[in-house]
Amino acid sequence: MRLCDLAPAHIRAISPYQPGKPISELAREMGLAEESIVKLASNENPLGVGEKARAAMQASLADIARYPDGNGFELKDALCRRYGVAMNQIVLGNGSNDILEMVAGAFLGPDRDAIYAQHAFAVYPLATQAAGARGIEVPAKNFGHDLDAMLAAITPATRVIFIANPNNPTGTFVPGAALEAFLARVPADVLVVLDEAYTEYLAPADRYDAIAWVARFPNLLVSRTFSKAYGLAGLRVGYGIGNPAVIDLLNRVRQPFNVCIPGLAAAAAALFDDEFLQRSFELNAAGMKQLCDGFQRLGLKWIPSYGNFVTFKVGDGAGVNQRLLRQGVIVRPIGGYGMPEWLRVSIGLESENARFLEVLPAALG
Amino acid sequence: MRLCDLAPAHIRAISPYQPGKPISELAREMGLAEESIVKLASNENPLGVGEKARAAMQASLADIARYPDGNGFELKDALCRRYGVAMNQIVLGNGSNDILEMVAGAFLGPDRDAIYAQHAFAVYPLATQAAGARGIEVPAKNFGHDLDAMLAAITPATRVIFIANPNNPTGTFVPGAALEAFLARVPADVLVVLDEAYTEYLAPADRYDAIAWVARFPNLLVSRTFSKAYGLAGLRVGYGIGNPAVIDLLNRVRQPFNVCIPGLAAAAAALFDDEFLQRSFELNAAGMKQLCDGFQRLGLKWIPSYGNFVTFKVGDGAGVNQRLLRQGVIVRPIGGYGMPEWLRVSIGLESENARFLEVLPAALG
Repeated sequence: MRLCDLAPAHIRAISPYQPGKPISELAREMGLAEESIVKLASNENPLGVGEKARAAMQASLADIARYPDGNGFELKDALCRRYGVAMNQIVLGNGSNDILEMVAGAFLGPDRDAIYAQHAFAVYPLATQAAGARGIEVPAKNFGHDLDAMLAAITPATRVIFIANPNNPTGTFVPGAALEAFLARVPADVLVVLDEAYTEYLAPADRYDAIAWVARFPNLLVSRTFSKAYGLAGLRVGYGIGNPAVIDLLNRVRQPFNVCIPGLAAAAAALFDDEFLQRSFELNAAGMKQLCDGFQRLGLKWIPSYGNFVTFKVGDGAGVNQRLLRQGVIVRPIGGYGMPEWLRVSIGLESENARFLEVLPAALG
Repeated sequence: MRLCDLAPAHIRAISPYQPGKPISELAREMGLAEESIVKLASNENPLGVGEKARAAMQASLADIARYPDGNGFELKDALCRRYGVAMNQIVLGNGSNDILEMVAGAFLGPDRDAIYAQHAFAVYPLATQAAGARGIEVPAKNFGHDLDAMLAAITPATRVIFIANPNNPTGTFVPGAALEAFLARVPADVLVVLDEAYTEYLAPADRYDAIAWVARFPNLLVSRTFSKAYGLAGLRVGYGIGNPAVIDLLNRVRQPFNVCIPGLAAAAAALFDDEFLQRSFELNAAGMKQLCDGFQRLGLKWIPSYGNFVTFKVGDGAGVNQRLLRQGVIVRPIGGYGMPEWLRVSIGLESENARFLEVLPAALG
């Protein structure tokens, strides 16, 4: 069709993001009951959503025929109080995916480069490509970010470097001190997007405060999400914190009503629910041990993970995945990340992890 | 800041969309009680949301920690049943704003043109500019679309024509037969985006079936929203219906989880709530008469409108708007649409319309 052939070549070449299979879809495909299915494919919070967020979400529905506040005053105000930043240092996103796409839309384009690591989050190359920019993939070191190699990859055309910490899908982690040293060496005219979607799962000893660095590094944008530890994936809320000039540019390409009303309300409440966050953290630590112990018993290799998921080696990832699906267990194949021999499994409830470990040996078969 | 100076010039030049002022914002600014404020600024449904949609939205919250179904199976299935189209003819958006931006992202770019009418919806020029394309604004005829002039404006670089029917903010309407004749004359390699955000407010005699035209015109994309007559603005759901090849390209630039869980659920239910839609239509017709009668009494000019809003002439739009705000009444200044002497008011409940008409004479000064 000539109309479509005339679309930009970099658009026509995009392979869309492959999400985790929804429970409803597997139920339809395999004729299974939805209740019998265990989904450990999208790094969701198995505890669901906290009570504070749920109450705020419920209350917000009264006025659902209104447009959301496009400025997100209430949520930004909560973020200001929580992190000690100013309103004009915050941009809100329809999930942090939206933040990443805004970065590409505002800072990339033809004749511009973005740098990201091999095995890093799939949206970095996708957003780069959609903007018509060139993506530079830097080989991973032990499945994680090789910061020295990323520095060396910078060209005069490089406008953005994407770093996921912890990284998805490999679960690798760069210590705060190494990141800070890296930031000091990145040229001031290159934006560093530090994607901290999983930061709430870091053990206390590993935590670092990237938001505090924004004052020293005007080229740092910290991206976070309410979709993981806060349990709000279904409402699509993320945010970026950075220099006001960077935030201003992102807001120029932001869709005016990008976050829905219950999302804005639930996120503002979730931010102060420390008890729920702590419970989610503890469940995750216990589940991580449960799964890794299971891999050990089965003699499977895994990549030590700092997130709420773990990536393990099975050989034929696609085949094992298919056999797990037939047993009603959804994990994530990561052939698209250049890791066809591996699968990624999210940490679930104890019973969900047990079910996965129970059906895994036969699926490996 | 050099980092931002290096962003593409067309991005740095964007002036973001100016939304209707939220009730909460006016309450903060003027120290007013929220309950005392009447907002007639964003063409929302004053009846709120229908019972079917509300029940579906409520039920969907149980699983809010899950990601939405990125394929939107349930809502697409409902649209297929309602409009007799196939799954692969539908793209879902975070409001129809998202559909418009996907069109720009997929079909526009540097060295490409988009055509739209003077006084047409602000997102057309904005999305065109964000994509780095050239916008061609065709002078309006009687505040509406001049289809012959738009045809004459097509260049070899034209890839997209945006048409709003009815148009926002002027409320003008192009009859279906004229649109159909226009489509037959547009070159096959130019995408016509027919934005029908207000189509549910058309009187029965004016209705036409653009979705049925998609089979004959593969270059037609019909865009609709759940934010107006369906009363779901706060959940952000829109959709596009077109040729599968066009839809496929749009899905390549679509964010994978662009519509939230309650939005998907509520929209699927709303689609079959004919009673609510009819009630909304009747309230709107009565309110339109109420407002136009009021304008007549005050000797004010207005543009006959086919939507759920009406644009009227006051002379000093900014000044009258300010005085209305001080009285707790929010309408929409449209200086940004090249109409600084006019204001747009949404049709509200009878009591809201009355309150607006009551404070208007003093605001006119």
